[in-house]
Amino acid sequence: MSKPLLVDLNCDAGESFGAYQIGNDEAILPYVSSVNIACGFHAGDPAVMKKTVHLALQQGVAIGAHPGLPDLVGFGRRELAISPEEAYDLTVYQVGALAGFVKAAGGVLHHVKPHGALYNMAAVNLPLAEAIVEAVHQLEPKAFLYGLAGSYLTQAAQKRGLPAANEVFADRTYQPNGTLTPRRQPNALITDEQQALNQVVQMIKTNTVIALDGTQVAIHADTICIHGDGAQAVAFARKITQKLREEKITIRAATS
Amino acid sequence: MSKPLLVDLNCDAGESFGAYQIGNDEAILPYVSSVNIACGFHAGDPAVMKKTVHLALQQGVAIGAHPGLPDLVGFGRRELAISPEEAYDLTVYQVGALAGFVKAAGGVLHHVKPHGALYNMAAVNLPLAEAIVEAVHQLEPKAFLYGLAGSYLTQAAQKRGLPAANEVFADRTYQPNGTLTPRRQPNALITDEQQALNQVVQMIKTNTVIALDGTQVAIHADTICIHGDGAQAVAFARKITQKLREEKITIRAATS
Amino acid sequence: MSKPLLVDLNCDAGESFGAYQIGNDEAILPYVSSVNIACGFHAGDPAVMKKTVHLALQQGVAIGAHPGLPDLVGFGRRELAISPEEAYDLTVYQVGALAGFVKAAGGVLHHVKPHGALYNMAAVNLPLAEAIVEAVHQLEPKAFLYGLAGSYLTQAAQKRGLPAANEVFADRTYQPNGTLTPRRQPNALITDEQQALNQVVQMIKTNTVIALDGTQVAIHADTICIHGDGAQAVAFARKITQKLREEKITIRAATS
Amino acid sequence: MSKPLLVDLNCDAGESFGAYQIGNDEAILPYVSSVNIACGFHAGDPAVMKKTVHLALQQGVAIGAHPGLPDLVGFGRRELAISPEEAYDLTVYQVGALAGFVKAAGGVLHHVKPHGALYNMAAVNLPLAEAIVEAVHQLEPKAFLYGLAGSYLTQAAQKRGLPAANEVFADRTYQPNGTLTPRRQPNALITDEQQALNQVVQMIKTNTVIALDGTQVAIHADTICIHGDGAQAVAFARKITQKLREEKITIRAATS
Repeated sequence: MSKPLLVDLNCDAGESFGAYQIGNDEAILPYVSSVNIACGFHAGDPAVMKKTVHLALQQGVAIGAHPGLPDLVGFGRRELAISPEEAYDLTVYQVGALAGFVKAAGGVLHHVKPHGALYNMAAVNLPLAEAIVEAVHQLEPKAFLYGLAGSYLTQAAQKRGLPAANEVFADRTYQPNGTLTPRRQPNALITDEQQALNQVVQMIKTNTVIALDGTQVAIHADTICIHGDGAQAVAFARKITQKLREEKITIRAATS
Repeated sequence: MSKPLLVDLNCDAGESFGAYQIGNDEAILPYVSSVNIACGFHAGDPAVMKKTVHLALQQGVAIGAHPGLPDLVGFGRRELAISPEEAYDLTVYQVGALAGFVKAAGGVLHHVKPHGALYNMAAVNLPLAEAIVEAVHQLEPKAFLYGLAGSYLTQAAQKRGLPAANEVFADRTYQPNGTLTPRRQPNALITDEQQALNQVVQMIKTNTVIALDGTQVAIHADTICIHGDGAQAVAFARKITQKLREEKITIRAATS
Repeated sequence: MSKPLLVDLNCDAGESFGAYQIGNDEAILPYVSSVNIACGFHAGDPAVMKKTVHLALQQGVAIGAHPGLPDLVGFGRRELAISPEEAYDLTVYQVGALAGFVKAAGGVLHHVKPHGALYNMAAVNLPLAEAIVEAVHQLEPKAFLYGLAGSYLTQAAQKRGLPAANEVFADRTYQPNGTLTPRRQPNALITDEQQALNQVVQMIKTNTVIALDGTQVAIHADTICIHGDGAQAVAFARKITQKLREEKITIRAATS
Repeated sequence: MSKPLLVDLNCDAGESFGAYQIGNDEAILPYVSSVNIACGFHAGDPAVMKKTVHLALQQGVAIGAHPGLPDLVGFGRRELAISPEEAYDLTVYQVGALAGFVKAAGGVLHHVKPHGALYNMAAVNLPLAEAIVEAVHQLEPKAFLYGLAGSYLTQAAQKRGLPAANEVFADRTYQPNGTLTPRRQPNALITDEQQALNQVVQMIKTNTVIALDGTQVAIHADTICIHGDGAQAVAFARKITQKLREEKITIRAATS
């Protein structure tokens, strides 16, 4: 095989807020190639953003902004009926704020990944996706947009000339149409770690995934999302990096 | 006199929030040379920030960020015991966010003016002033810092190599030591418009002001703050611009 | 006709926030028999709540809590995907807070009316409606629940043994199934004042309304919502109270 | 000694917020006789308040409201220059909200303890103390006000006819004038557990404490504050309850 196998490993970071702590950024960052830093709307605060940007620079991890809905108590996970213009506005605001910390620290903003319900809504709502893409394009035309593989988010980015990274999940099952099985369905999560690792490797090597009904579905995996919090997060991060190394897949943030 | 007389006229703008409106930006902007746009902590929201940036660009008015304390219900006017590091963090966040809208609109961030209690606290607290200056310098090293004339804010800016603009007030009285008479004192405000206009002209032409006790005090006036809200705001803006024109004083945002 | 004709006239109040003002409560309260006071989530703050409770007591107007979604920047008008349990929680919190001010002022909490998107969502979502009803019932079992006439909100209240008030709108058109024409449709609003007044009188006198397609639809009108803000609010309040008086309809808050 | 020795043991609870967790309420509540439940301004949210009220009722622990400054990111620990009227307003709001959950759960609100900077400010600012006391008195005239022993808070409560509980700290040192040694001073904290336990027993048995300079100072201990979070919290709670039992001191919430 002539073309080297590459994939980005990303995780959310900077989700603490004031006296509240979520995640274990120091422990997880050594295993990933890029991080999505919360921007203060669904999680994070100015002090946490600064600290997390510095941590990412120290670890040599590509820095992304992780804008979310203005819903701190809901952690940005509840859908809010915003207009495309409101999506544009809150993306500019949050990406601008994080870009401030990145600039102050002498770094570069590598990507933007919408968070939670904003990510999910934009995946299936083209005007929302286009509004977010437009905001990122105006602020950081070379930044990657991370979005659900094959979704409106990555499609809109490509159409606008913004580099896109198709994101896949190790621990989620897929439906025959290539979308994620909704979390409320019983088989949404892959709890067997070996199965999760195998799914990732297959996606990278063959650009396919086995859907819940057994059919083989096309999927493109530029970046894999792993979780930064939870008891097993660091252990799984270690396993997936080891597995990828065994399979001769290089972990590296996307470059344009 | 060979040197032309110049002064900047600034006012706060973009203080509306969601369904709530404060000020009359469309009416006041034609009279000023620079605006201080709220950044979402004490006033303003992403939609208002975008709209106000566009309005300022249309009117050819220099754009400034107006970061404040995180106290929307108190409009940023109540002192909050923040550390210098917290002042740095909230300045980077808010200036970064506004800079995002300025960049998206193709403009330039001209200055930063802290708001309300943050402005007042930093005027007399050197570590706070230095922290704010450091944040602005790292983000926008060519941006002016607007601060109370002769205060720690402008001193810290000059020391750090950041352009500073000494701000004076048309409608406030001064004490023998050159500071503003506190608002809680009976003679703090100048209610006679003619007296306010004369004070401004004297400050610009002679670099002095007559303090409450009749003594003449040195003061440097780079920029004059006028109010953007209130029934008389637009009328007074018209009068002060007319007075300055009569006195051959050019109204222009500072340039470095 | 032996039974006297009665109706309640309600309007939203206490929607100001900090330095921000919305509505003209002093001017509108003399015309209504009950007010819905915002509770700090979508509008209002503790100082405004206290002031508005006192104003209502002075005017002899029945006091209601007006809980909304936690979305100040969106004024509670954007749908947020909350669970029934979350609806219960935010209702207890906000009704409890307003009840505090009512108790401190020596008054009685007369009713609860959900605001904006919470009102609309609960009108068509039975579990949400039941959760809100349960919260009110546990806190104030004698308080009325104001809800869209014929909606799940008033149905759930009646089923739970909580007094309900069916709310109708003077300036909105109705569909053949008795629901409001959605605002996004062209004929949603009645802009002709005379038509609005006639619709109200018909609803009270005949328990019917003429739908957009000309059919006559059953509707029960316990309370009429009028707007407290906008240039025409006070003028229309005056007209509707005059019209009701001419028609011998007594304006009075519901009593159980 | 004929009079039985009694003391209340209180801890803060319900400080989690949305996805964020602080403290370990389930583990600590079995050791205390009263809890102070955060009310949403500096910590806590409606869901957490409900859950914590239920937990306290299950454990038979007296329930208190723990109102704080509107500063979630600062956890209510930063002084904010509020007026007495603003202190009154935010106390009514928060106590009312918590009282809602208590009423819904069929419980009784036993006390109110201001949190953090609000507690500290009111301890030394009589108008603030009186405003808070007035709010509690109007809402819950039989509720205890927990305040720093000998401070304006407990004095104002007693003067107003509101039951007061003088609070002391196991792990803090005292100054010759009976006040706590400020945290910024080197000897502020007692890190030796045995010394902390002995200090508590002496305060209860002799109504005195040994100040930092060795002098014996009068102090009245109605309630002891222990911390609910931190690695050692539960272990220390166990030790102090055991020590009190050994000393024949009954742990019981104050009764009027």
